[in-house]
Amino acid sequence: PPPSSLDPEVAARLRRTSDGLVAAVVQEHGTGDVLMLAWMDDEALAATLTTGRATYWSRSRGELWRKGDTSGHVQHVRSVALDCDGDALLVRVDQVGPACHTGTRTCFDGRDLGALDVATADGEPGDHP
Amino acid sequence: PPPSSLDPEVAARLRRTSDGLVAAVVQEHGTGDVLMLAWMDDEALAATLTTGRATYWSRSRGELWRKGDTSGHVQHVRSVALDCDGDALLVRVDQVGPACHTGTRTCFDGRDLGALDVATADGEPGDHP
Repeated sequence: PPPSSLDPEVAARLRRTSDGLVAAVVQEHGTGDVLMLAWMDDEALAATLTTGRATYWSRSRGELWRKGDTSGHVQHVRSVALDCDGDALLVRVDQVGPACHTGTRTCFDGRDLGALDVATADGEPGDHP
Repeated sequence: PPPSSLDPEVAARLRRTSDGLVAAVVQEHGTGDVLMLAWMDDEALAATLTTGRATYWSRSRGELWRKGDTSGHVQHVRSVALDCDGDALLVRVDQVGPACHTGTRTCFDGRDLGALDVATADGEPGDHP
């Protein structure tokens, strides 16, 4: 691959998938809501860190994708953290408009899986073992 | 692969990686904090949905992993949502103890990447384009 503009110290900490990507969890700064999951390669992370505009790798289109360039639904980046084992990023953003391309506010809205037996979960003793 | 106990209607909506996994974003129910990113195969998702105990696929160990069985740091599942394109789950949990195996509360705590020019991000007009 061509040399990346990503800080070599950061690049050395990434544990990438076989196709060179790290998962990016995108969380809204103000509400704490999880907006979406996206993917970053080294260039996308470098662009995100240097421009403050969330930039991802589109697996379906096979190209860099600066969120909002087409939709206007821009993400202004507040912070980026790398997890303990280097395979996930937490990107905190201010979101303009809906985050999801379907028009919902987050990509998870209204998409709960019904199979969970909530009664069982609620019957657990909560925060204590 | 052997037949899975996962609801076929749910299984049909999953868009798995080449190694059969879906990313699971784990969020604390009470605080909204993103605790960790983990991975689920069909069996892990089925177990999570039917038992209310968060269960993942460990990529490093190559086995199912019910969170807390060794550490005691159990996750009681409140809800599970599948995102718009079927490649990510949002698992909301009540977390017992720290979520991270390193002992930090989340896997992202204290791990911000310093390269972001926060002044630039703060200079953006916030929620409006």
